[in-house]
Amino acid sequence: MTQLSRRKVFGLAGAGVALAGAGAAGAGLDRTLGGPASPAHTETVEFHGAHQAGIVTPAQEHLHFAALDVTTNDRAKLVALLRAWTDAARQMTAGREIGTGGAVDGSPAAPPGDTGEALELPASSLTLTIGFGPSLFDDRFGLAGLRPPALVDLPAFPRDKLDPARCGGDLCIQACANDPQVAVHAVRNLVRLGFGTTEVRWSQLGFGRSSSTSRSQTTPRNLFGFKDGTNNLKAEDTAALDQHVWVGAGDGSPWLTGGSYLVARRIRMHIETWDRTSLDEQEQVIGRAKGSGAPLGQSAEFDAADLHVRGEGGKLAIPEDAHVRLASAESQNGVRILRRGYNFVDGSDGVGHLEAGLFFLAFNRDPRTQFIPMQKSLAAHDRLMEYTQHTGSALFAVPPGVGPGGYWGETLFGQ
Amino acid sequence: MTQLSRRKVFGLAGAGVALAGAGAAGAGLDRTLGGPASPAHTETVEFHGAHQAGIVTPAQEHLHFAALDVTTNDRAKLVALLRAWTDAARQMTAGREIGTGGAVDGSPAAPPGDTGEALELPASSLTLTIGFGPSLFDDRFGLAGLRPPALVDLPAFPRDKLDPARCGGDLCIQACANDPQVAVHAVRNLVRLGFGTTEVRWSQLGFGRSSSTSRSQTTPRNLFGFKDGTNNLKAEDTAALDQHVWVGAGDGSPWLTGGSYLVARRIRMHIETWDRTSLDEQEQVIGRAKGSGAPLGQSAEFDAADLHVRGEGGKLAIPEDAHVRLASAESQNGVRILRRGYNFVDGSDGVGHLEAGLFFLAFNRDPRTQFIPMQKSLAAHDRLMEYTQHTGSALFAVPPGVGPGGYWGETLFGQ
Ligand code: HEM
Ligand code: HEM
Repeated sequence: MTQLSRRKVFGLAGAGVALAGAGAAGAGLDRTLGGPASPAHTETVEFHGAHQAGIVTPAQEHLHFAALDVTTNDRAKLVALLRAWTDAARQMTAGREIGTGGAVDGSPAAPPGDTGEALELPASSLTLTIGFGPSLFDDRFGLAGLRPPALVDLPAFPRDKLDPARCGGDLCIQACANDPQVAVHAVRNLVRLGFGTTEVRWSQLGFGRSSSTSRSQTTPRNLFGFKDGTNNLKAEDTAALDQHVWVGAGDGSPWLTGGSYLVARRIRMHIETWDRTSLDEQEQVIGRAKGSGAPLGQSAEFDAADLHVRGEGGKLAIPEDAHVRLASAESQNGVRILRRGYNFVDGSDGVGHLEAGLFFLAFNRDPRTQFIPMQKSLAAHDRLMEYTQHTGSALFAVPPGVGPGGYWGETLFGQ
Repeated sequence: MTQLSRRKVFGLAGAGVALAGAGAAGAGLDRTLGGPASPAHTETVEFHGAHQAGIVTPAQEHLHFAALDVTTNDRAKLVALLRAWTDAARQMTAGREIGTGGAVDGSPAAPPGDTGEALELPASSLTLTIGFGPSLFDDRFGLAGLRPPALVDLPAFPRDKLDPARCGGDLCIQACANDPQVAVHAVRNLVRLGFGTTEVRWSQLGFGRSSSTSRSQTTPRNLFGFKDGTNNLKAEDTAALDQHVWVGAGDGSPWLTGGSYLVARRIRMHIETWDRTSLDEQEQVIGRAKGSGAPLGQSAEFDAADLHVRGEGGKLAIPEDAHVRLASAESQNGVRILRRGYNFVDGSDGVGHLEAGLFFLAFNRDPRTQFIPMQKSLAAHDRLMEYTQHTGSALFAVPPGVGPGGYWGETLFGQ
């Protein structure tokens, strides 16, 4: 669409007139009207690629995550939806409306093709990332033989307090953007396309990207007030990503090559209890300084942690039960993960506290050797567990990225 | 604090060293490290004034709203908290940390004065606005005689589906900012100061400012995809604000002069049902065009609505049961309100839908003659009610603003 016709469309829509032929061929309409906006909002992230966007993409400010169940046994319907989702994602990540009917170019007698609440909003670095849960590989769609051995049912971990209504899902959609309305709009429109084929099982909003995923970003803080993401895997660490994040061709599930596994854990943080502990206790629990983010025993945020250095009285600077010690590659047989979580506040808990925490998202190449042993040892030994509670859990196989002619899941379902 | 000492504080904090005397006298620490940020983030809104900020302040992007109950009967404790809250609000709205102990300048043996998650984040136009609910005027604090007659218990409206866990409250805090982490941080720190005196009753996050409140703003869209705020009262309409928003000296409650009444209604929107209706139906329900926002029968957003104009077949352009007709000043005896709501998505509803809607906030001078009759007629006749459900409700008296030496509520509790 040219600039002219877009504006014209808006003008006409004001008078309720349909514009025949505009936005034909599913091209979508550019949503923005060209007002000044910050780069965080005007930037777009390329949808196509060997890997899906939204994994090593520098973490955006806002998240809307949805887990869905498939409500049909009809494989063809599911595949048609995945194709429709991919087309819609192409449009929305480019800052365009989806569909060809509706508020700006449709027939007054039909529902609008796009729900409309992101009109005038630029792409805001929207990424859409999809995953397949273990339950998709049951007998409904003939996928049982293709379930990757690493796509396990996550085991119960010590001190889990999982709410079944926040667990699992046949599919997931991770929408990240620098404007929450853009992320919500994207999930909502995909959910809408799925009407009759899928249903929302649970959904979670998040903000404040609680982990940085690129060296281009400053490290944000989580709701315990600590910098989060300092020693994360970063987009720039391509060799480490190949080792720890991307499923390789030799990993036993060819359809997942170039993909990854996404762990989602909704972790309630007892912020009121935390806020009553001393600075010293807080720093001992994490193993880093609160102000600077430096590992205890070091002086600057990006100094390497030394797990053996001792301070006064021969005490370990980073205690035995500190979070960063237990989670470190050194304690985890060299294993690392890519964290990409968000802070959340879901109202209050009915007994006088904010219902707040970390919606932990992490990508890894094989949860059996990465997330699971890590979480096992954290759940058993991490002093941080005294201040947190895992209330939701899910694991998804994240297929590789798609090319301009492809669709999400084509390596699994076939062309 | 000078720029130098701030940076020094950070450096030292990294090594876990306390900096004696820094940030003394409750001055607070400027939180930001001076990186580049957009004006939406670096701007501050003046806290002091005749009216509280956050009412006619151009609506910011994000909301955290909390309703609290007072858990003590000790009036002096409550007044001390209101003083402490006011001091903390002065600091936080200026982009500073609160307290003098903690992550950046405190003793390692004490809990940090500030919870820390907004460190490095600029003020982001934070406003904090406080209100007093009807229940505060019972016999606990000797305020019964001062309850304004307009601070009624809101009546039950037709089709209300209120959840008691989302209603009422002795106090409310409305935090608005262009960064959700800044709004959440502010509420959390006030809640924390209230430990032992107040308790969170319910809380709500919102985004996307679903109403514009100044002519300097473009009109945002709500989750039905319609522009929201076009015909709102605006900051620039000072005479209309005096007439419809600010409590006057002759209104019978001298302590509330320069204040207002804040109505909060959590309105669930059935977006899935809405999304299946035709564009025509949607526009008839609202009474405006979806694309442009123009009143039906007119052509541009800010054209005045004409409730009498008829189109083909003599049909009223704006139907009898259209939202903007019923809510208009013309239908409401000249009465208007200042809307300042936010969109919300609170996960999903357990039966396959997003739990989404509008957290409706409105300021008015006397709810008995403004919000209540308006909502009565909307609840009974508005076609929009078919697509919405009111699930939470509260009314608060919003005291006037404070000067540099004052505190929130001083006109009620005395100096
Ligand atoms: C609410 C819960 C959690 C909080 C508040 C939290 C917070 C933090 C913080 C502040 C750091 C240090 C900064 C950094 O390097 O990013 C960190 C590091 C880390 N966390 Fe967590 N975390 C939580 C849960 C988890 C979970 C569930 C896992 C995995 C099972 C995990 C894995 C890691 C890893 C691998 C590191 C890097 C350790 C290193 O090598 O230095 N975290 N976390
Ligand atoms: C989810 C519920 C609601 C939605 C989606 C909604 C949406 C809208 C929209 C799209 C407009 C037109 C644009 C504008 O002038 O702002 C509008 C106008 C208005 N609404 Fe609502 N509204 C809702 C609830 C309410 C409630 C509960 C009230 C008050 C009791 C209210 C009072 C008004 C008023 C006074 C106007 C301006 C009417 C005029 O003079 O043109 N709305 N609303």
